[in-house]
Amino acid sequence: MTSSISPLTHFDAQGQAHMVDVAAKPATHRIAVAGGRIQMLPETLALIESGSAKKGDVLGIARIAGIQAAKKTSELIPLCHPLPLTRVAIDFEAASAHVAGAIGIFCSATVETVGPTGVEMEALTAVQVALLTIYDMCKAVDRGMTITDVRVLEKHGGKSGSFVAR
Amino acid sequence: MTSSISPLTHFDAQGQAHMVDVAAKPATHRIAVAGGRIQMLPETLALIESGSAKKGDVLGIARIAGIQAAKKTSELIPLCHPLPLTRVAIDFEAASAHVAGAIGIFCSATVETVGPTGVEMEALTAVQVALLTIYDMCKAVDRGMTITDVRVLEKHGGKSGSFVAR
Amino acid sequence: MTSSISPLTHFDAQGQAHMVDVAAKPATHRIAVAGGRIQMLPETLALIESGSAKKGDVLGIARIAGIQAAKKTSELIPLCHPLPLTRVAIDFEAASAHVAGAIGIFCSATVETVGPTGVEMEALTAVQVALLTIYDMCKAVDRGMTITDVRVLEKHGGKSGSFVAR
Amino acid sequence: MTSSISPLTHFDAQGQAHMVDVAAKPATHRIAVAGGRIQMLPETLALIESGSAKKGDVLGIARIAGIQAAKKTSELIPLCHPLPLTRVAIDFEAASAHVAGAIGIFCSATVETVGPTGVEMEALTAVQVALLTIYDMCKAVDRGMTITDVRVLEKHGGKSGSFVAR
Amino acid sequence: MTSSISPLTHFDAQGQAHMVDVAAKPATHRIAVAGGRIQMLPETLALIESGSAKKGDVLGIARIAGIQAAKKTSELIPLCHPLPLTRVAIDFEAASAHVAGAIGIFCSATVETVGPTGVEMEALTAVQVALLTIYDMCKAVDRGMTITDVRVLEKHGGKSGSFVAR
Amino acid sequence: MTSSISPLTHFDAQGQAHMVDVAAKPATHRIAVAGGRIQMLPETLALIESGSAKKGDVLGIARIAGIQAAKKTSELIPLCHPLPLTRVAIDFEAASAHVAGAIGIFCSATVETVGPTGVEMEALTAVQVALLTIYDMCKAVDRGMTITDVRVLEKHGGKSGSFVAR
Repeated sequence: MTSSISPLTHFDAQGQAHMVDVAAKPATHRIAVAGGRIQMLPETLALIESGSAKKGDVLGIARIAGIQAAKKTSELIPLCHPLPLTRVAIDFEAASAHVAGAIGIFCSATVETVGPTGVEMEALTAVQVALLTIYDMCKAVDRGMTITDVRVLEKHGGKSGSFVAR
Repeated sequence: MTSSISPLTHFDAQGQAHMVDVAAKPATHRIAVAGGRIQMLPETLALIESGSAKKGDVLGIARIAGIQAAKKTSELIPLCHPLPLTRVAIDFEAASAHVAGAIGIFCSATVETVGPTGVEMEALTAVQVALLTIYDMCKAVDRGMTITDVRVLEKHGGKSGSFVAR
Repeated sequence: MTSSISPLTHFDAQGQAHMVDVAAKPATHRIAVAGGRIQMLPETLALIESGSAKKGDVLGIARIAGIQAAKKTSELIPLCHPLPLTRVAIDFEAASAHVAGAIGIFCSATVETVGPTGVEMEALTAVQVALLTIYDMCKAVDRGMTITDVRVLEKHGGKSGSFVAR
Repeated sequence: MTSSISPLTHFDAQGQAHMVDVAAKPATHRIAVAGGRIQMLPETLALIESGSAKKGDVLGIARIAGIQAAKKTSELIPLCHPLPLTRVAIDFEAASAHVAGAIGIFCSATVETVGPTGVEMEALTAVQVALLTIYDMCKAVDRGMTITDVRVLEKHGGKSGSFVAR
Repeated sequence: MTSSISPLTHFDAQGQAHMVDVAAKPATHRIAVAGGRIQMLPETLALIESGSAKKGDVLGIARIAGIQAAKKTSELIPLCHPLPLTRVAIDFEAASAHVAGAIGIFCSATVETVGPTGVEMEALTAVQVALLTIYDMCKAVDRGMTITDVRVLEKHGGKSGSFVAR
Repeated sequence: MTSSISPLTHFDAQGQAHMVDVAAKPATHRIAVAGGRIQMLPETLALIESGSAKKGDVLGIARIAGIQAAKKTSELIPLCHPLPLTRVAIDFEAASAHVAGAIGIFCSATVETVGPTGVEMEALTAVQVALLTIYDMCKAVDRGMTITDVRVLEKHGGKSGSFVAR
């Protein structure tokens, strides 16, 4: 007879959600990098790029929104542990540097802590909110923008070892 | 000589960000629908689908997280106006119902208000946080999940008229 | 054949939770009063009562905590609508004024709004957090305090009419 | 002449509230369990129990609300220290298993941390908000529900030693 | 015999704090402007001014922090009513434009709503947090910066009429 | 050729804002004291002073608001690290005790932590919000109050050594 224990660690043996016990896990240095992009019309991208230089710094504002969102992750994701983040950094590049022909902005977020659990949720949340903020600031000219390919790129530290996306 | 006014309404004539004046806009009934999906391994999808029935209700928890996130939108997106939401509903379907061959969960969020501005940011935020919550709950078995194709599907009410994504 | 619609309005016909649609409900003046008490040792009550007069104003602090909690209700209770509260008032009395022989503090909260839904959750939340704050401030001398009999006392306004607890 | 120092540690020698100094206290493993129940009509209990199985998972949603509330305790209770919780778990049972003849739901919350102060406030807050969420979801059919007997059941770790309620 | 009613409206006839009743007050268009400045070393001001142009946009970040803080006012100030702000704008100038010989940055915030109470607290909060953010970003080079002269400059709308600071 | 690295540590070599890496900094005991005052009419000061004694405890409420604000600092100031504060205390005195002839209230806040970065932002935020709360509670009788001279008074712990304002 097979075990009834869920492989999803956020559920106990009765299938009830809980915030899992990490008291016995040592505090180690953790780092996670997530990335994703927002696709847009060429004219919208041109506006953002000119804006960064002179008027209307879309990316500067999106960066701040992403950093602040990383700090709110445990409020947003029900079973996340609160963690004292030691670093959050967010980068933007032209999406074409990542996917040939893509038009838009690629965002990556790097988050670090010294703690008992990883910070990939914080990195993903930072990317999502940074990209949402770009959507918000440009939606007056381009409602069809799409946020896509948001995922963990790298994760280091902790018992389960390093992960690097293919 | 061309005007120097940015077409991005979140910036004033000097290129400074502001929360735009909506005091003169009438409060009308607004509705927005956003959608997106998370792609995963077939085994992960099977776990979620069995869990919904008996143990470990991943989608039930993601739905609550998405509804709560919609209410936090103006805290997360710097230039969003706070709005008294009158409805938030979140649906999940197999992603294959939307994109042939896709493996994973498709999420849509419908948000309504009676107010001076639209609620597409609230709908997008609900979708993003619901999908992030699925990632969080399943990451122990599948770190390579990707959140993708998050966009506004429909938007009604307000001066700029209806928008329906192609 | 029996209907499959849940009498619990927070669930739709498929049994999925949602924040129910109140867009069509008129904004009317709503008022709700909730009450509850915390039971304690006679010495603890004596400390609070002397403190109010001279040093260590337990009830003054609990009142502020309760007022602030009323404003956070829609963050705490997943399916509550955000509402622009127009009044919050909190009163404390000796519990013995309400239940013969009871030793402790009785707290009541009155909350008002002009809106499409009632404010009984806001009143209950204010009472709970005010009583929890009393617990926090006195726990160094009395760990056995119990919060009890928290309920809606009155509710007026809205389609469903007035409710007064027996 | 007797000392004028309040036995309530949240006040200093002048009777002014403060968040007490815990810098010198060692970080030890702390655990607290709190419990309480909501009393209701037999029909309401029947609805919840059927709902858990098939449509309208009241307890699943209340559990998530309670876990999230535990993380918000230091925002709600003015003089609480922020603590990095390492575990939150919430259980529900029929109230009759705890008090003969009681009709309703009994909720208990277990919270753990490795830190300089205890987590009984977090456990109490989780119970209160979980029970309030049950009230919210069932109030359309039963306005007279009462939340009662909320208290600390057990507390371990720290200088003051273990506490177990009689 | 003199009346015992406090002229401070946030207290009732018993001297207890409450969030005052505004349900009967009409929703009118309100506007408030607050201002204040941060004084610093000439070298610090030079750094900020060069940064705005090319690297390290201190004022752009402070502006976003101020706008977001305006939306959090009712969370920060215990007896403030939550209000649906319709506009927030923040401006920075050289302090010397306001006070002869002053070295530093002058910040003003303009906040609007259509509601039953004024928004001067929101404008003051925006100024305070914008100036605090400047302090945070420059403190590595200048710990002696001072925030000063924060006050309401103008206020219009509502029964009590217009106010313009001398 | 001059270096292009900003002396403002919140910006990286490209001039982009980030939450700086503190993972390698040891957790040490940190303490910061900030102060500031609110200037008002003599009648307003008289009201506050009488109120503290008997009805309408303005300073008691401002103290709680300041303590709670200290805990929210990393939400308000975009690039602040979240820190587990171990102590927050707030004091009020007549402003004349600090500046000859000043009429109003002087507020100081002392904040401590055991962590990798200092807590001067938390102390400044506590002072600002405590003074704003005094403004809020007295604005019905004195709209011209001014918050002034808010600055760090002392700071100890950490690599950069002690700072004491002249």
